[in-house]
Amino acid sequence: MRPVTPHIAVDLIIRLAGDPHTIVLIERRNPPHGWALPGGFVDVGETLETAAAREAREETCLEVRLEALLGCYSDPARDPRGHTVSAVYVANGRGKPRAADDARNLRCVDARNPGLPLAFDHDRILADYLRWLETGEGKNLEQAQMTGRSA
Amino acid sequence: MRPVTPHIAVDLIIRLAGDPHTIVLIERRNPPHGWALPGGFVDVGETLETAAAREAREETCLEVRLEALLGCYSDPARDPRGHTVSAVYVANGRGKPRAADDARNLRCVDARNPGLPLAFDHDRILADYLRWLETGEGKNLEQAQMTGRSA
Repeated sequence: MRPVTPHIAVDLIIRLAGDPHTIVLIERRNPPHGWALPGGFVDVGETLETAAAREAREETCLEVRLEALLGCYSDPARDPRGHTVSAVYVANGRGKPRAADDARNLRCVDARNPGLPLAFDHDRILADYLRWLETGEGKNLEQAQMTGRSA
Repeated sequence: MRPVTPHIAVDLIIRLAGDPHTIVLIERRNPPHGWALPGGFVDVGETLETAAAREAREETCLEVRLEALLGCYSDPARDPRGHTVSAVYVANGRGKPRAADDARNLRCVDARNPGLPLAFDHDRILADYLRWLETGEGKNLEQAQMTGRSA
């Protein structure tokens, strides 16, 4: 018997034009509405990396080169649709960004000041990304639960 | 409607006695049989980090302090039971290791030469761990699928 586990998704910080601060946000077509990093659920049969490239292509029409795994986000409350773990990748985009598929709109923003309210925990992911740019350290661990003594 | 995604699991490289090469392997009680890193499926409602600490406690009776996310392993063929993504953590263990729950036996081995055939892709994970010890670089990305041009 196969167990029930959280769903698994990927999200991407896609940088454009070689500028680490210029990134792509999409406006979601489906609930929860609002602006977010491009991403989506992983299909059975594809690696996380393949899913990330596919979601980038579908939502932003960009080909991406993945550069790093920023970290995994797994707070049960991070997605109002139900518990979803997200693996977040830093990528460089190539092409002309254009909203498609689950994205109804698209903007290139400054990661330091996106100027748009973000869905899910994507503001936190952006903060982790900015720290990663400065220090080279990924998000890595949920600090509150590193000792293994929490329930 | 919620999508169908791969299952999500955690596995741990648990070091003992402050020696990065002395790690814990368990003999699996359930199929696929054989030796493996401690780990298991993530429950809905717990973070990856909580799941890792829980599995360590259940299978090895050790309290662990997670030190790093080594990487995510998501090859669809890595688990014969079905597509399972594993987030792998490096941890330090405290206590006396003892097999319990899904572990029928336990051994402390040298990560450089475990001397036991390992289930899943755990030999590859150990190789990535040894490289991480040397270079500080995690597994990070499936190299074959970094460009986003694969299917």
